[in-house]
Amino acid sequence: MTLQRVTKNLAALKKLKTRMQGRDFLLTWERTLDEIKAVGLVAECLKDLHQAGVSARIFDSGLAISIFRDKSTRTRFSFASAADLLGLAVADLDEEKSQIAHGETVRETANMISFLTETIGIRDDMFLGEGNKYMREVGDAVSEGFAQGVLHQRPNIVNLQCDIDHPTQSMADLLKLKDHFGGFDKLKGKKIAMTWAYSPSYGKPLSVPQGIIGLMTRFGIEVSLAHPEGYDLIPEVIEVAKKNASDSRGGFEVVNSMEEAFRDADVVYPKSWAPYKVMERRTELLKRNDRPGLVELEKECLGNNAKFTSWECDSRKMALTKGGKALYLHCLPADITDVSCKQGEVSQDVFEQYRLATYREAGFKPFVIAAMIFMAKFDDPAQALAAIARKGGKRLRY
Amino acid sequence: MTLQRVTKNLAALKKLKTRMQGRDFLLTWERTLDEIKAVGLVAECLKDLHQAGVSARIFDSGLAISIFRDKSTRTRFSFASAADLLGLAVADLDEEKSQIAHGETVRETANMISFLTETIGIRDDMFLGEGNKYMREVGDAVSEGFAQGVLHQRPNIVNLQCDIDHPTQSMADLLKLKDHFGGFDKLKGKKIAMTWAYSPSYGKPLSVPQGIIGLMTRFGIEVSLAHPEGYDLIPEVIEVAKKNASDSRGGFEVVNSMEEAFRDADVVYPKSWAPYKVMERRTELLKRNDRPGLVELEKECLGNNAKFTSWECDSRKMALTKGGKALYLHCLPADITDVSCKQGEVSQDVFEQYRLATYREAGFKPFVIAAMIFMAKFDDPAQALAAIARKGGKRLRY
Amino acid sequence: MTLQRVTKNLAALKKLKTRMQGRDFLLTWERTLDEIKAVGLVAECLKDLHQAGVSARIFDSGLAISIFRDKSTRTRFSFASAADLLGLAVADLDEEKSQIAHGETVRETANMISFLTETIGIRDDMFLGEGNKYMREVGDAVSEGFAQGVLHQRPNIVNLQCDIDHPTQSMADLLKLKDHFGGFDKLKGKKIAMTWAYSPSYGKPLSVPQGIIGLMTRFGIEVSLAHPEGYDLIPEVIEVAKKNASDSRGGFEVVNSMEEAFRDADVVYPKSWAPYKVMERRTELLKRNDRPGLVELEKECLGNNAKFTSWECDSRKMALTKGGKALYLHCLPADITDVSCKQGEVSQDVFEQYRLATYREAGFKPFVIAAMIFMAKFDDPAQALAAIARKGGKRLRY
Repeated sequence: MTLQRVTKNLAALKKLKTRMQGRDFLLTWERTLDEIKAVGLVAECLKDLHQAGVSARIFDSGLAISIFRDKSTRTRFSFASAADLLGLAVADLDEEKSQIAHGETVRETANMISFLTETIGIRDDMFLGEGNKYMREVGDAVSEGFAQGVLHQRPNIVNLQCDIDHPTQSMADLLKLKDHFGGFDKLKGKKIAMTWAYSPSYGKPLSVPQGIIGLMTRFGIEVSLAHPEGYDLIPEVIEVAKKNASDSRGGFEVVNSMEEAFRDADVVYPKSWAPYKVMERRTELLKRNDRPGLVELEKECLGNNAKFTSWECDSRKMALTKGGKALYLHCLPADITDVSCKQGEVSQDVFEQYRLATYREAGFKPFVIAAMIFMAKFDDPAQALAAIARKGGKRLRY
Repeated sequence: MTLQRVTKNLAALKKLKTRMQGRDFLLTWERTLDEIKAVGLVAECLKDLHQAGVSARIFDSGLAISIFRDKSTRTRFSFASAADLLGLAVADLDEEKSQIAHGETVRETANMISFLTETIGIRDDMFLGEGNKYMREVGDAVSEGFAQGVLHQRPNIVNLQCDIDHPTQSMADLLKLKDHFGGFDKLKGKKIAMTWAYSPSYGKPLSVPQGIIGLMTRFGIEVSLAHPEGYDLIPEVIEVAKKNASDSRGGFEVVNSMEEAFRDADVVYPKSWAPYKVMERRTELLKRNDRPGLVELEKECLGNNAKFTSWECDSRKMALTKGGKALYLHCLPADITDVSCKQGEVSQDVFEQYRLATYREAGFKPFVIAAMIFMAKFDDPAQALAAIARKGGKRLRY
Repeated sequence: MTLQRVTKNLAALKKLKTRMQGRDFLLTWERTLDEIKAVGLVAECLKDLHQAGVSARIFDSGLAISIFRDKSTRTRFSFASAADLLGLAVADLDEEKSQIAHGETVRETANMISFLTETIGIRDDMFLGEGNKYMREVGDAVSEGFAQGVLHQRPNIVNLQCDIDHPTQSMADLLKLKDHFGGFDKLKGKKIAMTWAYSPSYGKPLSVPQGIIGLMTRFGIEVSLAHPEGYDLIPEVIEVAKKNASDSRGGFEVVNSMEEAFRDADVVYPKSWAPYKVMERRTELLKRNDRPGLVELEKECLGNNAKFTSWECDSRKMALTKGGKALYLHCLPADITDVSCKQGEVSQDVFEQYRLATYREAGFKPFVIAAMIFMAKFDDPAQALAAIARKGGKRLRY
């Protein structure tokens, strides 16, 4: 079954026009729709091959470097899994101050760690205006190194979450939708509610909702972004979503009611975040290491959040969705009422109903990351993937 | 020579009835005697093949996750070595609060890290009543994930030391005995003295002595457990040892004299531990993070220990053993008098006499872990191992 | 092109007499000139093969252990890259107190981590009189383990920087010179200025300048060591350099003027270090953990350094070199005036002119480390390397 889908996906892949060899994956909206689809199809193929016990090892040796500015378990293991699947060994750069380390230091370090490196995964999501910029600096540095003969190959950069986008997450979510509805072409006209939800913590990054509205609007989906007044996302990404929706003949609206967004939705994505203006203030305070200021800001924000505890995804609100049966998405971990906290983003019964579905959603991520690396390595990725499938080398020998 | 033994062991392995594919190794007494022997034979074969320069790589890719709640060097490297021998890459989960993290968190995390994971090694030995339980929660979580299509394969759990058992250690000790006496069948009737010994530290886990009495009693061995009054092991394990001894027509006794246990012993295993009642109190204090209480308990226990400094394995006591020539075992590191401390578990001269033997004892551990992973992956492990030996791929090519 | 050089280097390699199988690389001056050249040629071949996309994987499995007593990014990634290139998985031993851990502990630990280990890379450069000694203790321990049947193979030790030498750095520097001047035989008669330079930090290790004067004097090079009065290197290494220079018919002088050393130099290597007498005092203070003493010593040393801020490599001094065009070397990171500090080892304009050259210099290091491991594994390394080149397995398959 799975290998039949590989054949079908390979045929679809061949028709797509992509130009990703040697290139980074930093924002979904910098990639063409064909390239987005190609990454998705390659990820799906790699997943199907894995399930069928076929080895997709393409490297005999090589390093995959991870740079995590934030604590991370899921993304860390997704990256490690992806690297290992392709034959790369993970080396973690423990660079505590990557957001400050600009200029000469980044330029030099990026080259020093890359002599035998094939890919660099970076998570830098704490500082608004910094994370994506840092990834570009690293990318520029290895471009120079490769052009000047310092490096034998240019490692590609994979954005494992920045201040603007979270492409490995949104692509995994997209594949979950493709799987659920039966194809990229089935997404047109569907309604997705990307809504803020209450959480007893603050300072959650904006990259997930921004990633969702920036990506889903490419597929003719009706995207309804809902949040309490003041909980705005970065204006630039709102503009991206509007333009995407217009180009794809989908829709994009911003509303201030969870119920309104849920109404007739095919998909709901209730998830907390901090207003971007708060993130800007927080970034300044963090840069100045202003501890009292941070405590004060947290207090103010939690107080503000507390006005919106009703923004919980519960069965009453789920009943408003299309046939009461919308698909629930979450990047995990969710703040579950009475489980992980007293009052959270989602009620216990709703979450439990979709728990395994969210696990399966997360299961796409390692393969999405692997696909991003894969696409950066081959001039003709469809041909390489077909060769892998044809060879059919076993993951577990004997 | 070594390859001849592989042939012999493979023949013996084929006769054993095992059912370990997809299953965890959490307590030796949950496995049949055939399964215990099978793990031992596979470990010995993998060791012999390694010595002969033959690659036992069975995986083309895949992760081996380690979760260490305690600082560990030996077991960490044993697990890393075992994983690498079979072709898996190690990814360490730095989960500081695994003993607390129960319920939803464990269930979710276990799946999130396992999408491309083949095995999970866990050390959780600090909290009485918690470690083994936690391993089972992880096991249940990945069972659910596998059954529900979240995971393509179910990673097997390897107990790298819990509050109850330390099966990779006791199995390594068993293979040392097999090697020393010439076969599993030669162990019958031998006497092993598992005795408490003085150490200037406290809070040492119970899993080593419990593992020894729980395993060695399977082989018709006369097991003499010796400790000062009050230094009891968990009652449930004492019952296991009694039943095993009865079933295997060996023996099991508990005495309060090191000398008595040593008398006519073929093997001695002098090793410090804390009374289980102290471990219970310690667990409660640790859970409450009661620092002054922990200091008070340590003081009380060290004071108590100090009454038993004569419980040292010295040449005078070794002279009591069978022909004065008992084999000395230790899981390392030992507290050696005048070397690692002023007064310890073993005198310098006795330890030096057996030092290299204890190193060789430890040398079985990586292969025991590899065997536990190996057994969990194949329906017919003997056939897979025979194929590896037949192929004879070189570890060092060219 | 690169593969043509491989053929040429292999021919040269065959003519060299080496005896490095199973042996450690701890000091360049313990190895014969043929062995130094052989390591260089193997490193160059591995680099060329990597550039040509040919896999140099020689191990099907095996561990490469790294022990870092100092924070390290570059050397850590160089070691990880080298290990991975050859097919080994890196396992890091986090042994915070390796300088204190002598005797039994080192002996035991070295064996415990080495059952499946092929190489051990150690950086221990903080304590004068300790680092290199510690490496030898580890080497002796695994020698005993191998001889006594504890280990199936003896892992070789690679000195990743000690208190005396930094052979992987000096060998990388040597390959940069070979590349720059066109061959080992072109180095004769060249002048290299290894000079102290001002830095606003103190306590920088002596191993780089000592490594340079200990190695470059083997090739008939005129080595001019320059530093302010009192900034002496270890007397024993000065003697080594003198003897080497005499044997190779090169030259070795010590002067107290940066300008004098730069005059007519073909190569300059301006780099800060602490006087060895300061390092001796520092070692004593560190051993006693005397914090106030360390603060006092730092203050005194920085005050002393501050008298020599004119020891900066600037364009005026570069103009004194041969044709004003000497090659600038640095082990990186350099203290660059107005970039990484207010006043440093090198002016911004000079550094920028040579920046990419220093990156390329660093690019030899992973391959030097790989060559040291490679040489330790084969009785006939030239034959093994020729087999790799002939097979031409692709690093990136498909």
